[in-house]
Amino acid sequence: MLNFDFYNPTQILFGKGQIAALAKLIPADTRVLLLYGGGSIKQNGVFDEVMGALAGHEVLEFSGIEPNPSYETLMRAIELVKRENIGYLLAVGGGSVIDGTKFVAAGALLDEDPWSIFDKRSANVLSALPFGVVLTLPATGSEMNSGGVVTRRATHEKRSFASRKLYPAFSILDPSTTYSLPTRQVGNGVVDAFAHVMEQYLTYPVGAKVQDRFAEGLLLTLIEEGPKALSDPEDYDVRANVMWCATLALNGLIGAGVPQDWATHMIGHELTALYNLDHAQTLAVILPNMLRLRKEAKREKLLQFAARVWDLHGGDEDTRIEAAITRMEQFFEQMGVKTRLGDYGLKADHIDQVIAALEAHRMVKLGERRDVTLDVSRKVLEMSL
Amino acid sequence: MLNFDFYNPTQILFGKGQIAALAKLIPADTRVLLLYGGGSIKQNGVFDEVMGALAGHEVLEFSGIEPNPSYETLMRAIELVKRENIGYLLAVGGGSVIDGTKFVAAGALLDEDPWSIFDKRSANVLSALPFGVVLTLPATGSEMNSGGVVTRRATHEKRSFASRKLYPAFSILDPSTTYSLPTRQVGNGVVDAFAHVMEQYLTYPVGAKVQDRFAEGLLLTLIEEGPKALSDPEDYDVRANVMWCATLALNGLIGAGVPQDWATHMIGHELTALYNLDHAQTLAVILPNMLRLRKEAKREKLLQFAARVWDLHGGDEDTRIEAAITRMEQFFEQMGVKTRLGDYGLKADHIDQVIAALEAHRMVKLGERRDVTLDVSRKVLEMSL
Repeated sequence: MLNFDFYNPTQILFGKGQIAALAKLIPADTRVLLLYGGGSIKQNGVFDEVMGALAGHEVLEFSGIEPNPSYETLMRAIELVKRENIGYLLAVGGGSVIDGTKFVAAGALLDEDPWSIFDKRSANVLSALPFGVVLTLPATGSEMNSGGVVTRRATHEKRSFASRKLYPAFSILDPSTTYSLPTRQVGNGVVDAFAHVMEQYLTYPVGAKVQDRFAEGLLLTLIEEGPKALSDPEDYDVRANVMWCATLALNGLIGAGVPQDWATHMIGHELTALYNLDHAQTLAVILPNMLRLRKEAKREKLLQFAARVWDLHGGDEDTRIEAAITRMEQFFEQMGVKTRLGDYGLKADHIDQVIAALEAHRMVKLGERRDVTLDVSRKVLEMSL
Repeated sequence: MLNFDFYNPTQILFGKGQIAALAKLIPADTRVLLLYGGGSIKQNGVFDEVMGALAGHEVLEFSGIEPNPSYETLMRAIELVKRENIGYLLAVGGGSVIDGTKFVAAGALLDEDPWSIFDKRSANVLSALPFGVVLTLPATGSEMNSGGVVTRRATHEKRSFASRKLYPAFSILDPSTTYSLPTRQVGNGVVDAFAHVMEQYLTYPVGAKVQDRFAEGLLLTLIEEGPKALSDPEDYDVRANVMWCATLALNGLIGAGVPQDWATHMIGHELTALYNLDHAQTLAVILPNMLRLRKEAKREKLLQFAARVWDLHGGDEDTRIEAAITRMEQFFEQMGVKTRLGDYGLKADHIDQVIAALEAHRMVKLGERRDVTLDVSRKVLEMSL
């Protein structure tokens, strides 16, 4: 097992009716800014439930945080926070709203352009406004971690940040708020959580038996529950399991003490920034061939994945590995997320642009062994056409 | 899944060499009290390593915290803290030292007798001295939770407490500090962690699939690694897995959103208070027959335990259940922990005294369904002779 430093102070309030706890969780003597996305929370009742719980508070609103939240939009939120003397932020939504809120929480206290967070690798985030979360879309895990991703529309850059100052103080996870999610978001969320686990699990063995078992437990649960979330959208326990899986997939626990990959995510970010694919779509396209191409370096864990997650024991090693990857692809398709670049209208002549973007962002040595060069990334993209 | 409120802010620094981090973790401008047990840390080098890391700090010592730490001893520590104006506590040891340190951290700031913490169910713990941990004995999980157990020698009472103010600020877990542990403590620690998982896992199903998978992952790892910790005491990865299992067995995670039992622990506490059995010895004696006697109420989870943990699939249900419980007993014995009351010199005529103690402490409706009456406890004890 590798040495690690695990810290996660976010309080999780999980279950039906937990939104009412907001009244006590947020201090009454400060102005609150409620941040959200496109307004679905006004249709499904969550907005009213939140405002009801905050009846004793002074609440302002900032709406319109888009999927893959933009620097341009978030700078307007930062201006509002400063102008209105906001003391507490409340993100109501999914990963984009939460990531955006983290950027606002840090950026509002900076004297320099908040974009500097990326160039300084968050070293200038010495403090942040306190913030909480009401999660309505299980997927990214942002509700219980300290990182985020922000896109600069003007330059097509999608950049990530993380700081120990940016854990939510609390996150409320009520699975029943996810009943009304569109099918596409449910499928994306399950694929996203699955890929998060794989980036931390599917590397090489370091004798970290608990982390492996926990990662496999999350994968098995996503495989069992994901399809049910599509077929029976109001099954509470199914939604609860998917929601808790997505949070635990990226809260630091399964990644503590093990090597981590993340090459798939880095290539995926470029596909989203350039062509606006959903985040999960990029992962469903890239991950399977990333594993195929790097089969030798990942052989031991691929065999473990085949045996423990897909119950594949017969045949020679290569057959088992290919069967496991194919089963994973089929699972992504079952969740409604297509797995070929062609499914999204992308062709061979787009690849140069993706490679150029990776090079521009210095993503030239990716993966747990830093051996995913631009050539490797190019091959994975070619295999995924 | 049941609703839950999960919160655990303890920072874990895990691995070789992490004790050096103490220099930065504890503020330099406050007096530190180092609390420890019988002095084994002076033989195995941990004391010197800790003092070396704290070279820039003013450090006082309090030694002699015994297994099942006593109120009488801890009151002397509280007096010292007050007299010497201590601002930070550092527990170096296992669960007893950590539990004791938590009691001191809370008790030193109370204006009333700290024993009041038990009668007031910790409601009077409004603040506590900050404290950290250097763990040298994986077993109780106290290094990453907010509870503890203290024994009053004068009255043979063993009582537990818990408060959100009593999470360690940090815990340092260096598996190599456990190489020199006596065999008995290694075996006890593995059995203790195993029983902690069972108290949270082996109840009735509520559809909490992730919690079940995580619990099973811990049990499987303890079964694989526990015996190796005895046979090959300086295998780093084995020690690392046992250590991380013990912490995760009782940090709130696997118990979030599920029913919990704890009847075995409550009876076990009386056996320790009355006859001074090691905590793990009491669990090894009580748990198997607690499961046998309550087989009907626990049937579904017992079958899941048999299938997923012991890979038992053939035969009728009752056969599988009995085989799983027997395998667990054999595992406890393999870890060097005997599983009959008679092994510890206890006979049928001791049982009345145990039942009287349970009654005196109002432990008359135990278990996840509150149906473990004194009659049930008596039967379990009789089965365990």
